[in-house]
Amino acid sequence: MNIFETLESEVRSYSRGWPVVFDRAKGSYLYDEDGREYLDFFAGAGALNYGHNNPALKQALIDYLSRDGVTHALDMFTVAKRDFLQTLDDTILKPRDLEYKVVFPGPGGANAVEAALKLARKVTGKESVINFTNAFHGMTLGALSVTGNSMKRGGAGIPLVHATPMPYDKYFDGAYPDFLYFEKLLEDSGSGLNEPAAVIVEGVQGEGGINAARLDWLKGLDDLCKRHDILLILDDVQMGCGRTGPFFSFEEAGISPDIVCLSKSISGYGLPMAITLIKPELDVWEPGEHNGTFRGISPAFVTAAEALRVYWSDDELEKSTKAKGERISAAFKGIVETYPEANLLAKGRGLARGLEFADGDLAGKVCAAAFERGLLMETSGPDGEVMKLLPPLTLSDEELGKGLDIISESIKTVLHK
Amino acid sequence: MNIFETLESEVRSYSRGWPVVFDRAKGSYLYDEDGREYLDFFAGAGALNYGHNNPALKQALIDYLSRDGVTHALDMFTVAKRDFLQTLDDTILKPRDLEYKVVFPGPGGANAVEAALKLARKVTGKESVINFTNAFHGMTLGALSVTGNSMKRGGAGIPLVHATPMPYDKYFDGAYPDFLYFEKLLEDSGSGLNEPAAVIVEGVQGEGGINAARLDWLKGLDDLCKRHDILLILDDVQMGCGRTGPFFSFEEAGISPDIVCLSKSISGYGLPMAITLIKPELDVWEPGEHNGTFRGISPAFVTAAEALRVYWSDDELEKSTKAKGERISAAFKGIVETYPEANLLAKGRGLARGLEFADGDLAGKVCAAAFERGLLMETSGPDGEVMKLLPPLTLSDEELGKGLDIISESIKTVLHK
Amino acid sequence: MNIFETLESEVRSYSRGWPVVFDRAKGSYLYDEDGREYLDFFAGAGALNYGHNNPALKQALIDYLSRDGVTHALDMFTVAKRDFLQTLDDTILKPRDLEYKVVFPGPGGANAVEAALKLARKVTGKESVINFTNAFHGMTLGALSVTGNSMKRGGAGIPLVHATPMPYDKYFDGAYPDFLYFEKLLEDSGSGLNEPAAVIVEGVQGEGGINAARLDWLKGLDDLCKRHDILLILDDVQMGCGRTGPFFSFEEAGISPDIVCLSKSISGYGLPMAITLIKPELDVWEPGEHNGTFRGISPAFVTAAEALRVYWSDDELEKSTKAKGERISAAFKGIVETYPEANLLAKGRGLARGLEFADGDLAGKVCAAAFERGLLMETSGPDGEVMKLLPPLTLSDEELGKGLDIISESIKTVLHK
Amino acid sequence: MNIFETLESEVRSYSRGWPVVFDRAKGSYLYDEDGREYLDFFAGAGALNYGHNNPALKQALIDYLSRDGVTHALDMFTVAKRDFLQTLDDTILKPRDLEYKVVFPGPGGANAVEAALKLARKVTGKESVINFTNAFHGMTLGALSVTGNSMKRGGAGIPLVHATPMPYDKYFDGAYPDFLYFEKLLEDSGSGLNEPAAVIVEGVQGEGGINAARLDWLKGLDDLCKRHDILLILDDVQMGCGRTGPFFSFEEAGISPDIVCLSKSISGYGLPMAITLIKPELDVWEPGEHNGTFRGISPAFVTAAEALRVYWSDDELEKSTKAKGERISAAFKGIVETYPEANLLAKGRGLARGLEFADGDLAGKVCAAAFERGLLMETSGPDGEVMKLLPPLTLSDEELGKGLDIISESIKTVLHK
Repeated sequence: MNIFETLESEVRSYSRGWPVVFDRAKGSYLYDEDGREYLDFFAGAGALNYGHNNPALKQALIDYLSRDGVTHALDMFTVAKRDFLQTLDDTILKPRDLEYKVVFPGPGGANAVEAALKLARKVTGKESVINFTNAFHGMTLGALSVTGNSMKRGGAGIPLVHATPMPYDKYFDGAYPDFLYFEKLLEDSGSGLNEPAAVIVEGVQGEGGINAARLDWLKGLDDLCKRHDILLILDDVQMGCGRTGPFFSFEEAGISPDIVCLSKSISGYGLPMAITLIKPELDVWEPGEHNGTFRGISPAFVTAAEALRVYWSDDELEKSTKAKGERISAAFKGIVETYPEANLLAKGRGLARGLEFADGDLAGKVCAAAFERGLLMETSGPDGEVMKLLPPLTLSDEELGKGLDIISESIKTVLHK
Repeated sequence: MNIFETLESEVRSYSRGWPVVFDRAKGSYLYDEDGREYLDFFAGAGALNYGHNNPALKQALIDYLSRDGVTHALDMFTVAKRDFLQTLDDTILKPRDLEYKVVFPGPGGANAVEAALKLARKVTGKESVINFTNAFHGMTLGALSVTGNSMKRGGAGIPLVHATPMPYDKYFDGAYPDFLYFEKLLEDSGSGLNEPAAVIVEGVQGEGGINAARLDWLKGLDDLCKRHDILLILDDVQMGCGRTGPFFSFEEAGISPDIVCLSKSISGYGLPMAITLIKPELDVWEPGEHNGTFRGISPAFVTAAEALRVYWSDDELEKSTKAKGERISAAFKGIVETYPEANLLAKGRGLARGLEFADGDLAGKVCAAAFERGLLMETSGPDGEVMKLLPPLTLSDEELGKGLDIISESIKTVLHK
Repeated sequence: MNIFETLESEVRSYSRGWPVVFDRAKGSYLYDEDGREYLDFFAGAGALNYGHNNPALKQALIDYLSRDGVTHALDMFTVAKRDFLQTLDDTILKPRDLEYKVVFPGPGGANAVEAALKLARKVTGKESVINFTNAFHGMTLGALSVTGNSMKRGGAGIPLVHATPMPYDKYFDGAYPDFLYFEKLLEDSGSGLNEPAAVIVEGVQGEGGINAARLDWLKGLDDLCKRHDILLILDDVQMGCGRTGPFFSFEEAGISPDIVCLSKSISGYGLPMAITLIKPELDVWEPGEHNGTFRGISPAFVTAAEALRVYWSDDELEKSTKAKGERISAAFKGIVETYPEANLLAKGRGLARGLEFADGDLAGKVCAAAFERGLLMETSGPDGEVMKLLPPLTLSDEELGKGLDIISESIKTVLHK
Repeated sequence: MNIFETLESEVRSYSRGWPVVFDRAKGSYLYDEDGREYLDFFAGAGALNYGHNNPALKQALIDYLSRDGVTHALDMFTVAKRDFLQTLDDTILKPRDLEYKVVFPGPGGANAVEAALKLARKVTGKESVINFTNAFHGMTLGALSVTGNSMKRGGAGIPLVHATPMPYDKYFDGAYPDFLYFEKLLEDSGSGLNEPAAVIVEGVQGEGGINAARLDWLKGLDDLCKRHDILLILDDVQMGCGRTGPFFSFEEAGISPDIVCLSKSISGYGLPMAITLIKPELDVWEPGEHNGTFRGISPAFVTAAEALRVYWSDDELEKSTKAKGERISAAFKGIVETYPEANLLAKGRGLARGLEFADGDLAGKVCAAAFERGLLMETSGPDGEVMKLLPPLTLSDEELGKGLDIISESIKTVLHK
């Protein structure tokens, strides 16, 4: 491991909890260089919804590379991009009656968020944005300014301004009416709140601790935005592409946000790709006003289009995701009841699931115990107090069972100490 | 082309000048879906220094994918990353006596710049940064704030502050001593200049108009930074990886900047990848203080390592790049002399070359004429007045000759009108 | 009135509601150039707590001017300043066991606030400040950024950042526990709230609509600040100098804020003067780090010292202010009960009193009707919906009675229409 | 002196160099409490152009106070304000063919600057402002952001952004053509300079070191602003009211700036007062959009109007100021020649004069030696290296001679050590 320690920056983090050298991966499993297998309930932080090296996508990818399909094409027209756009329209947008135009904002989720914020400000002529407590939107300066985590914010080295945090759903455990504070500030011309261009929100907060907003709350937020002429930006970077069941995390709330950010699993194969969906009337950009080198990576378009065709031509994946999510939910309920004194809390929706411990130390120990047993899981939440499950949506029932058994054991080991 | 017009945002730009649908690519050529070939003197805006779908890299990539090497691995330890780090150290850092640690800041050049700015501010506790006239560093909020182009800056929708522009080399055609203004502001405690954390500079400005700073000027800047305790950030995103001849654009100036940003051609195959090189003493980050989903894309590590082995184990590529650059320079000199009334200006270093026209209209017409003849070139500079050449470093002498002929003809057509 | 219309900017406001030319003033009365008298229940927006041209202060002032006491002395030592400092210490600070050092920040309340904010940021090394809904702290950029009124904020022409508004007392009519949201944001490291250097608060909000914070709430805020190491800045510019009864509006809450801003009535005679009181341990400024031309106006020191001697050597003024305040409160209660359908709300403490109407139009009409009857009053609140009473503390019982009669009549006229 | 040390903040500065307690003042003299006299060549940092307690103004002031003229009147119409406006129009504006409207921005120079900046941003919709090296405009956040001194800027505690410094006249001793850099940045759309709303400039920089811009340079700046649609703000707070000879420091340059800031000597008697003059077409404010408590201090209006009548009804004061200025200039020339090895530099215009020493230590010692001899002078410039003379314009020839003698002796003492 020497070269990592000598040459890689101390900013690396995952390698600290999982100090092995990974080599291969397939489906729900990663393998280290000694051949040991690890069941992956982290899935690239949500970037591998269809599992590692998914065979259908792999075949399309290798075929494309083999025939010398153009790899890097900036924002030129390509056959691969055309196929992606057509497939997105056919399998996702049209069936959901969603009318959006597609921006290719750069290779990662932060680019999708930066493009969204820039456009919202340009369209409205306002600079202020509302974000939510425990939000996570990325590490570039614009995205970081709407992110909650104070350690990550501190890394900016300049004051992060232009955003005001409002309480996410359940922040006060339902003790107060939704949006009471937010709407009062908006309606009171003396409140001191700068009139916001946009609200940016996640359907379920992943990094923030697997906080699943109620669908009613999302609907209420959409209504509020409409009442006050505020653009609604839905950051579905982590929770989109089926993570909560439906393709978009907001579908069941019956809303269609003004701007939607997608990345992580959109390419399907773990290749960097991001898109920002915008209502057609917001498409006011000058050509080239937002650009970037890695906006037209054709191999990613190829796997993205194939993933949409394979997994989103029918509702099988959505159903299975919900069913597996319910199975985790039931298992967590059992665990919560088994350790009443531990005050555990089960959270989440679809296959974004969390189990909240009293503190980050306990959750970290459980993840460490799971790692020893061959299961990869991470913590999230402001103090790392939530054990987070983001398995591939394609994991088998057997794999899910195996993972849940390891979790059960690991918790037992930690809590019974 | 219908689906592009319906579904893709108006922000797209390259497709406007080259309204064909590209399908395949190999070496120095792109092919549209009707099989027409285009000699590529743009090379992914510098992201394809080794040409399209380079066969050596392609083989390594397909082998890796075929054996199910892990694709997406966040910042875990992987065999692919280890090989990349070791190869980078062996072929690039050690032979040049450069001591750096490697940050994987995210998938694109803007991420490398954002990480550099964040770190410089964190280390120094200062917020202000000096950038240069006509700089280009990226489209995310931090990178955009140090970028010069007013149209792109305007897209931010908020005031871009914290940066003060200084004149790049030759901004006044040598009429004034280098850095006179900059250093006077630094030394005068009443100047009103906020004390800068860092200077960010490109060795050759690509987007700014192929402005090649003299090596003396770069050395002078490095000296000034040392005198005033300012960190020097060298953004080699476009000009690194051999574009100007040596691997780094700053090598021949005899300097070793505090922070170096690389992206574009670092993966070698056009796949999204970026690294930020930092002096070991600057490595003060907390684990995870800067992170991101696409920092460990192993297929990119595989092609990156292979590219370093194939092209940087000896100095053949460097020599050939310089030689080809000189050939372009000579050809441009001829063109400049042929049209004395047009006041053309030849610019650049290595295989980053530009020919400046009186205005953007002329340069645009030449590029359009070249496109009709099967040559892809773009303009750059504040008014698009520079015809820009960034061919693959691997192009053959015959391809170079063919391209120069088309350029010659295209200029003739336009200027003789 | 011609020269005003030709030469004075349209930004003037009070002259619009009171379109007469005032000439003389004495005690509780202003006189226009035609000799008509106006009972003044506005008192220079709280700058004339001891009435117009108070005879005791007038004598001291004319004596000082006549003997050529130095008028303008920057921050030099002067006999007049020494007398003021000594008197402040003897009559105000020592009797209340308050330990403060005195900054002379410039001539107006905004200067006192700017100095407070600068010092709080310097001492803590943090940039963010918490202000409250409907706060008013002044019109200079620093003070404006913590002010609530959106029209006034809009005048800045740049985004006002670095401050986050929290709900002032009773903002939700007790529906939320005090400070619930504020403290939760502080305690949650993922909340996205930048760690604040300071909280700035008014004991009673004047411009915001005569909102009198409960003493318990102020005490609770002080406790919260202590728990979280946040400096508490009490802006007593309008409510200090006895407006609410005691010299400081916060006395009865049993707190001693870290920084206190005073201006308006501190000179006693309406002359520009301001002081910022700071805990001795906060006095970390370099000599001259904050300065200004009008920090040592001796005539103001002379009237200020005299006012402290005359009015604050015993508790008579405090008692009388409270008694008169109660009389207004009783009268307002009667009015509220007389017009149950009008949903009036009586507000305030001491001689800062307000009567809230359903909208700004009604409150404005009442003030206009009162002006016709020879009584000067203004509106406040975000929509001007509060009829505001800030009479001189020295008004006689008879004057108070007369004013209340006019108010009664004016309301009758307006509400019965 | 005890109470000062115990109770006054360490931020006090002038009292450190002049550790005596002043009591009375008249004309060009201050007197300490022991009756010792000090010839005042500082004149309230330019706030006492007509001397201390000028008898003509004193009489008008005492008359006004005695007859109970209204003292504090916010922005109501008053007889005193009408007289001031009419006199300003008659004696200053009309004779110079200047068309301005008058804003009463608050009591001090910083208020005049804050109002100017706010209005310029509101009118243009741009946020950026150009200031000059070694500028001084005030201590409130907006004014401080366009001030050069790094120690004073550091006091802000937040990054001071939105302003970019350009070189003031003679900054490079004529080595660069005027405005070369500034105009190039404006014309180059890739320069990275945010398009400025306004330029703010002093006719002569007082705090910056008595730097007198050539009239040609001011004219050139005005032309540049017109060419580029930038508002020109002339901060005449210290150099207006006749300090350089004519009433405005810019008159002889033949320009009429869009916005002019006046304060310091405008009231004539050292009382806090400020006005912002704006071109009529810029008067776009909403009523009350900029306000403040101390905008209508009638005693100041009374002395201000009287000063205009007494000193600006003819050109005697202007002529005498110039003549006395020339006398100082000649005396300084003699001193410069007497000490060739000291490299002294004589600076200034009218009765704003400076003598630059090699460093701040020497200049400070000369001022200290002068103080011992009964002469008050201060240093200015970024390192305090300039001995600054701002005597009352009304000083007698004998007083001037006496002061120059003391200066001569003091320099001799210091330089011959």
